[in-house]
Formats: sequence, structure tokens, C-alpha cells
Amino acid sequence: MAEMLRSYLCDRWVTADDEGVALLDAATAAEVARWSSAPVDVPAMYEHARTVGGPALRALTFPERAAILRQLAGYLNERREAGYYPLSFASGATLFDSKFDVDGGIGVLFAYASRGRRELPDSDIYLDGPVEQLAKDGSFVAQHVYTSRHGLALFINAFNFPVWGMLEKFAPAFLAGVPVVVKPAEQTGYLTAKVFADMVDSGLLPTGAISLVCGSTDGLLDHLTGQDLVAFTGSASTARKLRQHPVIVGESVTFTAEADSLNCAILGPDAVPGEPEFDLFVRELSREITVKAGQKCTAIRRAFVPAGQRDAVIDALAAKLAKVSVGDPRTEGTTMGALATLGQREEFFANLTRLCAEADVVVGGPDALAGKGLAADGAFVAPTVLKARSATAEALHSIEAFGPVATVFGYDDTDSVVALAALGGGSLVGSVYSYDPEFVREVVVGAAAHHGRMIVIDREDAKTSTGHGSPLPMLVHGGPGRAGGGEELGGIRGVLHYMQRTAVQGSPRALSAVTGRWVAGAPTVAEEVHPFRKHLEELAIGEVLFTGSHTVTAEDIDQFVQLTGDSFYAHTDPVAAAQNPLFGGIVAHGYFVISRVAGLFVDPAPGPVLANYGPDNLRFITPVKVGDSISAQLTCKEKKARQTENYGEVRWDLVVRNQRDELVATYDVLTLVAKRSD
Amino acid sequence: MAEMLRSYLCDRWVTADDEGVALLDAATAAEVARWSSAPVDVPAMYEHARTVGGPALRALTFPERAAILRQLAGYLNERREAGYYPLSFASGATLFDSKFDVDGGIGVLFAYASRGRRELPDSDIYLDGPVEQLAKDGSFVAQHVYTSRHGLALFINAFNFPVWGMLEKFAPAFLAGVPVVVKPAEQTGYLTAKVFADMVDSGLLPTGAISLVCGSTDGLLDHLTGQDLVAFTGSASTARKLRQHPVIVGESVTFTAEADSLNCAILGPDAVPGEPEFDLFVRELSREITVKAGQKCTAIRRAFVPAGQRDAVIDALAAKLAKVSVGDPRTEGTTMGALATLGQREEFFANLTRLCAEADVVVGGPDALAGKGLAADGAFVAPTVLKARSATAEALHSIEAFGPVATVFGYDDTDSVVALAALGGGSLVGSVYSYDPEFVREVVVGAAAHHGRMIVIDREDAKTSTGHGSPLPMLVHGGPGRAGGGEELGGIRGVLHYMQRTAVQGSPRALSAVTGRWVAGAPTVAEEVHPFRKHLEELAIGEVLFTGSHTVTAEDIDQFVQLTGDSFYAHTDPVAAAQNPLFGGIVAHGYFVISRVAGLFVDPAPGPVLANYGPDNLRFITPVKVGDSISAQLTCKEKKARQTENYGEVRWDLVVRNQRDELVATYDVLTLVAKRSD
Repeated sequence: MAEMLRSYLCDRWVTADDEGVALLDAATAAEVARWSSAPVDVPAMYEHARTVGGPALRALTFPERAAILRQLAGYLNERREAGYYPLSFASGATLFDSKFDVDGGIGVLFAYASRGRRELPDSDIYLDGPVEQLAKDGSFVAQHVYTSRHGLALFINAFNFPVWGMLEKFAPAFLAGVPVVVKPAEQTGYLTAKVFADMVDSGLLPTGAISLVCGSTDGLLDHLTGQDLVAFTGSASTARKLRQHPVIVGESVTFTAEADSLNCAILGPDAVPGEPEFDLFVRELSREITVKAGQKCTAIRRAFVPAGQRDAVIDALAAKLAKVSVGDPRTEGTTMGALATLGQREEFFANLTRLCAEADVVVGGPDALAGKGLAADGAFVAPTVLKARSATAEALHSIEAFGPVATVFGYDDTDSVVALAALGGGSLVGSVYSYDPEFVREVVVGAAAHHGRMIVIDREDAKTSTGHGSPLPMLVHGGPGRAGGGEELGGIRGVLHYMQRTAVQGSPRALSAVTGRWVAGAPTVAEEVHPFRKHLEELAIGEVLFTGSHTVTAEDIDQFVQLTGDSFYAHTDPVAAAQNPLFGGIVAHGYFVISRVAGLFVDPAPGPVLANYGPDNLRFITPVKVGDSISAQLTCKEKKARQTENYGEVRWDLVVRNQRDELVATYDVLTLVAKRSD
Repeated sequence: MAEMLRSYLCDRWVTADDEGVALLDAATAAEVARWSSAPVDVPAMYEHARTVGGPALRALTFPERAAILRQLAGYLNERREAGYYPLSFASGATLFDSKFDVDGGIGVLFAYASRGRRELPDSDIYLDGPVEQLAKDGSFVAQHVYTSRHGLALFINAFNFPVWGMLEKFAPAFLAGVPVVVKPAEQTGYLTAKVFADMVDSGLLPTGAISLVCGSTDGLLDHLTGQDLVAFTGSASTARKLRQHPVIVGESVTFTAEADSLNCAILGPDAVPGEPEFDLFVRELSREITVKAGQKCTAIRRAFVPAGQRDAVIDALAAKLAKVSVGDPRTEGTTMGALATLGQREEFFANLTRLCAEADVVVGGPDALAGKGLAADGAFVAPTVLKARSATAEALHSIEAFGPVATVFGYDDTDSVVALAALGGGSLVGSVYSYDPEFVREVVVGAAAHHGRMIVIDREDAKTSTGHGSPLPMLVHGGPGRAGGGEELGGIRGVLHYMQRTAVQGSPRALSAVTGRWVAGAPTVAEEVHPFRKHLEELAIGEVLFTGSHTVTAEDIDQFVQLTGDSFYAHTDPVAAAQNPLFGGIVAHGYFVISRVAGLFVDPAPGPVLANYGPDNLRFITPVKVGDSISAQLTCKEKKARQTENYGEVRWDLVVRNQRDELVATYDVLTLVAKRSD
């Protein structure tokens, strides 16, 4: 008897004492592991995650969490060959499929580590949007902030991506500072458990940060609260059941579903045989049918082609699929593996039969593998193509056979293909193959409301496109309606999903205290030492420099014209400048103003400030004329240490005024400032 | 018999033929209107909204929708005195309360009109975040876009804000291009119906944009789809019931709830009697008890004060509340009106009794109005203050008596008051009264995860603060858990809530076609005429200018130092500059580079380009040294006509390179460009 998969809770491994059920190899039916049907101690697990894991995670800043993710990604990356691919084969996945799952999952960790480091602040709070002015005199302002939820994130994963499915949810939740509880799908739970065990063994994660349930789901929903989240991936029907749970509803538990959907691919009328987009369409369709033996939530189920091209597409597709070799993923030459279980195969055939009430099999079909010498106990099926009898038959837009099958439909015009796409009732992804910008625009804009992602594949991105079926960490993944109505990933968007947004109102002084970022109007500190002479650690938020002033002369403007060649009439021609509705006379160049202001605040000698790498949010407000005096206030607004460099970023708030105290320009100056070398 | 309130569907008024029930004046029990219990033809109403209203709205751009909102706000604003306040009195609201509801609602329209005009593009698509580079060679990119949902938004409103409740939901949905169906609360539906009728009569709204149901809710949820949204405001128990509806669950209908919650106010330990924050706390608490007779989802229900200050707070509060005059809102001198109905009063007293199992009445109470000569049929109650017997008694943190009451609790230290705030299980708003930045930070950051909004009231914003109980259009409104788990308003965030976010992937050419914004790598058009010589209408997206080049000399740098006074060592001291880790030698000023590039592309003579009002996203990438040649590509990226001006905004993409084709700087230049005068 194979080993029973263990659960991990309260930072301890727990083995159930029942016999469990056997999990079988998809190709050989050999026993891979056993799965318990006993429940775990959910209240204790949740209590530990919330009271130990949550505080431990929240005590880390975003960059600290990102650094851990980076190390963890490296740790798992080294264990792919020996640890994960062999177990992945047992699920029926080929090496290519396994990389999609395993490398893809680890890739999400790397991507979030990098985004977290670059795009999140050196803090545990994320500031969303600008400071909102709520009073004319500036004494009452607001800032939206995101803070970590004080609950846990429960992941209920699908069997088809045992590694990616866990890691794509884990990475953003971890960056957000929220402990996670992973409930893998039984069928392929052995691979999830293996990766999870390595995450524990890495010793990189704080106490209480992760838990694993290999066993019954009993009680997992019963003990949730309004601070918790559930992220579910799987069938639309299970999503429905979970979403209705009285605790989910009663406590307003945030519930996200990513459900399989009837994703479409649309061939443009311009993409006739011979055009590159025709071939790209056939290639992509063939790939989506065969990768993971079609067991992808994102796989193309509905292929829409101009009615006149339908037979050409089917012929080309048939030729391509004829080269596919179905078999044990460990056998050399196999290009398509098995479904995950015999149960999956049974369900697939049942749904295929239902589809065949409205469509005809034109490639493959249930009996196509007979006599091919495949193991009788392997969950093998042939790549299959259906031809719709009526484009609007309801079954074809609502029944998903979760395996290597797609249906080809004919369509008449742009409006009708947009309407067909919508019949799916909401999809994760739709793809368009056309080089006609007008068609592309009409289809994408027309169908976007029904899709979480749309991809245009044409001759220009043919080589670099990641394809219809691949969610990417920087893009949102999910879709409306049938696809579950949820969103995951999307770069930092995915992190914020695990946090609570709060509008914080108060005086600038109070807001600065809460956010750690200086807010205009908050107290400042003027010191004797020039702030540019201070190292990163020595600078205080709110430290200020009031510059001297400079009176702009006609010579300044003339010389700037000479030096830069910028002889725009507003700087050179008094008569024309007087007629400009915004200036009413000769004005100094905006770039002269900010350059001259830099001359007022820059401290020339070498020091901790290494470089100005660009102003942000620069706006020229009141024009500057000859005789105007300009001066500025420079305030240290925000700091961010770079963990792997001996310097960090400092954001300075710049306000330039004239002698009438009118606002001339406002901007942030971004500088690199050295850390203390001791 | 008073008039039966009518429904409005398929752009027609419909009167039910049943007798309905009487809606009574809160203070006098006179009949105000009648409410039907008959259902309306929901499928026809929804079909019309989706197929007529949706397309009509989506045919408008954001600025066009914003302009309509602006006009509508003006139209309703003129009808307040004669049309709305008198009906509002019937609901028990004083003039002050009525302004909170009526003027507040119209204020949301004005605010969204203004935000929509300023912050949304001249398009029907909203671009979210930057272009994501998905391939190293730039041939495969992505852009997140928001498009209007193709469904409708069903508003199920609460009785306490008959005008604001409808308009705060309508404004963002309308800007988003989504038709709305309004179901007012029966108790005060006469006022909602009155404002709605004026919206229809204004003639400003497109066909099918709005519908009204004054009748049974039968079938309203049964016919929704995954493209629809429901925004509910009301009790947590009703939210629970609606959220569980099989269609909401089965179709993944977006469901947002904003439920009454047990909001808290926290007095800081520093705010002892005599400090301004002590008085501000008492003032705010008294206001929140009396405004709308305490019938606000945002009202303070739990007041946390340092244990030693509890009696002082209660005494001060009692003194303030003693001056409140309860009565018919039409009677001069009345400072607090009635509850909306006698049924509300009954429920209020029932919940007060439950609270009194754990707390003592110290001000007001059920019998406090006896002998005050108030009409026996008026739903009057006295402002009431309770004193908690135990700070953690569950009833006090979970039972809401929806009327003029708050409970005062004592707390020991910062951690314990943060924990008490969390016991509410999720709130719309919490307020803090303290001038101690440390305390403010700990409480706000510690409790933010449990709140949709937090406000710090201190001596600095005392005069300008809009107060604990006022949601603002630019700030999110909603809260986790008990508060419903939803978000409304929040400026443009509220608009995007009614739209679908889609990640669009493709070549730069395809992405430009979809978004209408030029994407780096997409085709450009070089014309003989300088792009700065073209009026707004004549400029094409993708129109490009390749500048000549300029070779930077040591004299350039020296003269720039002389002219601007910016003598930073990297520009002046070869030895020190050589040691700078980023430069390794004398470099030109970044501002010189962009100024000199402006000299390369500016067309000097007067023309349509009026001004450069600021660069965006400027980053200096490769430093420029003496002998380097710089040149630039200037491409027309995006245009936005200003509806009320004779010019618009043009965003130009700027890329500066050196003679080795290395990136020197990238930024957008923002200009104002005149429209054609013919």
C-alpha cells in the first residue's frame, strides 16, 4: 500500500489513522498514494493561522516578504527534476505539460518576488491613489490605504494544475501578509503535497504561514469569518455549492471562483488559407486540444470561423492532430498523455455524448484509440474535433467536456461572432486571429465584457505570444459569469485582493502619521545640515529645505533659448506670446524653471545623493515672466531602501512658488541616496 | 386616498391596479402615498434596459455621459425646495437631515460629473495600468482595459436615504454606461419616486437608461445574468437572504452589499477633558445620535473611551443631548425628527431592550418622551445613551438598534481598544479623536482591516472635517464582514465597479487598434507637415516626428551650470564624477537633455500647440556624456478634447536615444492643442 498523504497544521505534520482511498497512476493504474477521508482539526488550524501566522507575516514589510518568495522560488526550482516531474507523470501529464504546471508555478513565485520588490513600498501598508483634498484650506485630506486582512486565505484547488494552482494563489497572498490554508484536489494531491513539504522544509516561511489539508473538506467553510477569503478553482457547479454556504454568505467571506468556461477562438475573415493568421489559428487550436490532454480551464472549446472557411480549418486541424501520439507520458515519442483519472474519462465521454446531440465528430471521438495498443487501465482519449450543426445550439455553449475536444462553428459577420462569443455566458479567455485592425477592434471591444482575458494572435506576435491558454502572473486571470466572476493574479492587483482597502481621513499631520509618507500641510523639520548631506538612514520624513529665490531675467530666457534651441514663440516673440491665451506675454521655459530651482537646492559636493532619476507628476501651473522671483520648498516625502544595493530611493516633494505666493510648479523629485557605509 | 406610486419600465409609467398599502407621515400619521404589492413585468423591463438602454449608453463617451450628469444635477438642484424637502419632512427628517439626503445625493452627481470630465478618457474604454511588456523584443504586449458591462444594475435601496441612496449608486453606474433599475424602500419610496420622475422629465437621459419599481420585488432577482450587478443597501439579514438567491449564486451576478454596522468612535488617552479632542468627541457623538434620528448605517453605535474618562464623557454628552428638541420636523425649533415609521420605532425599542441586558440607560430611554406633548401616532423616540456593563458583551457588538442610541464602553490600553473595534465584525466607519500621532497610527493601522473608512478628528481638521457619518463621493464607502463586504463610490473606482476588467494581449499594432492609444512598437505615420502645426482634429494617433540630433559638448554642460546654478559635482568635477557608481565621469544634466530635445522638436512659430503643461513618467535611463549624440522620436499617443474649451490635451510619447541606440530617457509630453476654429 502506498503512503498516506499527510496534512500540515499548527506547524506539525498529521497523519490520519483511516485507510483512505488509493490514488492511481493515470496511465498505468499503479497506486501512487492514499488519501484520507478523515477531517482535520479545523478550528485549531484556523486559530493557529490567524493568531500565529497572521501576526508573523504582518510583522514583515513587503520587500521582506518578496525576498522570501525569491528564495523559496530558487529552492523549489532546484527540486523539479528529481522531485516533481516524476510525480507529475503519474497524473498523465507529459514533460511539456509538467513544465507548464511546475515551472509555471515556480515562475509565478519569481514574478511576484520581482514585482513585490520593485512595485511595493518599504512598508506593510500600500497607498492607493493620490491624496484627496477634502477642504479648500488643505486642513482635511484623505488617502486610501490597503492593509493585510486579519484572517486567512483558504485555497480550494483543482486537480489539473497541482503545482501552479497552489503557487499562483500563494504568491500574492503571501506578499499581502495573509496566511494560507491549501486544500489540494484529491486526484493529484500527491504532487501538491510534495511541493508543499518542500516549502515547509525550506525553513524560509514564518511560523503559521501555511497549512495543508489532505483529507476531508468537512468544516473548512464552517469556521470562516469576514476577515477570511476563499479562492476556489474548479467546476462551475462546485463553485455554486460553496458560494451558497451559510457562513460564506452570512459573514460576507470574500469568495473568488475561477471556473472552467467555454472559451472561444475567433478566426478573422481576412485570415484565409495562405495567410499567416490562418495557420496560427490551426496551430493554437491543435495545441489547446492536446496540451494537458485538454484539461485546462482556459482551453479553447468553441472555435468560430467564417462559414466559408469551416471545412478548410477542419481539414488543416485533422492533418495536424493526426501527428499526435497518445500514450504513457514516460514513453518516448508521446505527445499527449492521459486524463488524470478513469473517472475523468468517464465524465468526459458522457459530456461528449451530450455535445454530439448538436454536433458531429469530425476528428477522433470515443473509439478512435481502439487497437492502438494502449494500457486498458490508462485514462487515454483521442484528440477530438466536433463540427456544430447549428451555431446557436445551447448545449454547445454550455456543456464543457473537460478533455481534448473543441467544436468548430461557422459564423456570418462580425456582429454575429461577437454574439456567439457571448453565448458562453462569461469566459476566462477568448482569442482572435486576424491582421485587420478594424475587425480586431470590433471583436475585442465587443466581447471584452464577457472575458477576463483576450489575446490577439497575428504575424507580429506569432513568435513571442505565450498563447491562448496561458495565464500570466502580471495579467488578471478569471472571468465573469460562467467563469466564476472572480479575478486572480494581475501583478500587484492580485496582492491587493488579499488586503482591505480603507479610506483614511484626517489632517495632513494625522495622515502622515498613519501612512509614513509626508502629506503636504503636515509638520516639517528644518535642520542645519542640508538634507542632501544625509544618508538614507539619517533622513527623516518631513525634513525640509526652503531654497533662496531667483529673479528671472530676460537674459535667462534668451540664454536658455540659445543653449537648448527651444525657440518656441512664447519665449521669443513678445507680440505672438501676448496673444497666447494661456501666457499673455513672454514666459520662461518650464524646463528652465525646474532646472533653475535645482540650482537653488542642489548641494554640489559629493555626498550621499547619487542621482536624480526623474521627476514625477510634474505640472506647470502659473507661468513665470521676467521679473518673477521663484523659490521652492523641498520636503523628504518617502524613502525606500533597496535590499540588495547600498543605496535606496528617496522621494522629495517639490513646490515652486513665485513672489506672489502663487503655485508655479509641483512635482516629486526621485533620487538615489546612499546608505551609511558603516 | 393618496396617490399610488407608479413604476417606470420600458420608458413608460405603469400604475398597478391593486389598492396597495398606505405610507404614513412619520410625525402625523397622515397618508402620504400608496404602495402596490403587484409585481411588474420584470422580463420586459430587463430586456428593454439591456437591449435599448445599454447600447444607447455605450454609444456615449465618458465625457458625454459626464456632461449629462452635470446637467441632470443642475436640473434636480432647482427642484429641492418645492419638490423634495416637503416630502422629506414626511419621512421624519428635519431640514438639516433632508439636506444631508437631498443635497448630498445631488452633490454626488456634481462630483461624478466633474471627476468623469477630468479623470476619464475621451473614449468608452478605460485603460488600467501601464502597458505590460510580455516579450523582450517588444512584439507582444498587454494592456488591462475596462469596458461597460452588457447587463443592468439593480439597486435595492434602504428607507433612510431615499434620494442619496439612489443617486450615489446611479452616478457611477451611469458614467460606466450601465442602465439602472431602482427599487426604492417602500417606507419612503414617495420621495425616491418624485426625484426619479424629475430625472425622466428632464429629458436628459437616453432611452432605456433608467427604470423604477414601486411594487413587489417578485422576480427581480430571478431574471438576472452574469453581466448584471446588484447593489443592495439595508440590513445585514436582508443582504444575506438576497446573496443566497440561486440566480445570484448560479450566474455569478456581482452582488454588493452595504449593510448597517456597529461603527465605533475612539477617544484617545491624551484627549482628557479640556483638550479640544475631548470636546470634538462629545460633539460628534451627540451629532451621530441625533442626525436622521440615528437612522444612518454609518452612525456611531459604540463609543470607546479610556476607562477613567467614561463618566466625564457621559456627563458631557448628557448635557449636550438635554438641549435636543424632538418633534415634528415642520415645527420651528425641532432639532431631531421622528423615526421613519411606527414599525421602525417598535423594532428600535425591541433591540434597545436586548441591549439593556448588557448595558444601563444613562440618557434618554424608551419612556423619556412621556408627557412632552408629542403626537401619539408620531414615531418619536428620545436620544439615548447606554453604558456598557462589560466591554466585551457580545450583544453590544452585534445588535444594532437603528435609531438615536449609542453605547459608551471603557477601555484599558491601545491593544484592547483595537480588539474591541474588531468585535463589531466589520464596520463601515470608525473614528479616532486624538492628537497623539503614535496612538493614531497604532489604532488606524491596527483597525483598518475591519473598516471601509476611518477618520481622525483633531484640532487641525475640527473646522473642516465632514464628520464621522458622511460618506464622500471620492472615498470608498462600504466595509468588510458585517458591513456587507462591499465597496461603493471612491471616485473613479466606483465607476469601474460597473465595468468588466479584461487583460488584452497582442502585438503593439493590435493593442493600439483596440485601445485607441498608440503603443510603442505600433506603426507610425510620418507626414510632411510638422505635427505641431496640426489642430486637435487633424492629428492622427501614431503620427510621428523623428528629430535631428545634437552632440553634447563640454560647453553645453558648463553653460547649463552657469545658467541654472546647478553645479552638482557630476556635472563639474571630473574626479568626483568618475567615482560616482552610476555615472563614472562627467554627465549632462537630465534637465538639459530634455530641454535640448525640446529644442530639436519644437516648432517655434505660433500654431495650434498652446503649451507644454508638464512631462509624465519621465525617467533618465542612460547618462549622457560629452560627445554623445542625442535624438528623439515624438509620437502622438492620445488625444482628449475638452468639451467646454476650444482646445484639448494631446499626449506625446517621447523616446530619447544616443548614437549607440541606447535609451537615454522616456517620457510623455503633455500639451494643450487648439481645436480648428472653423
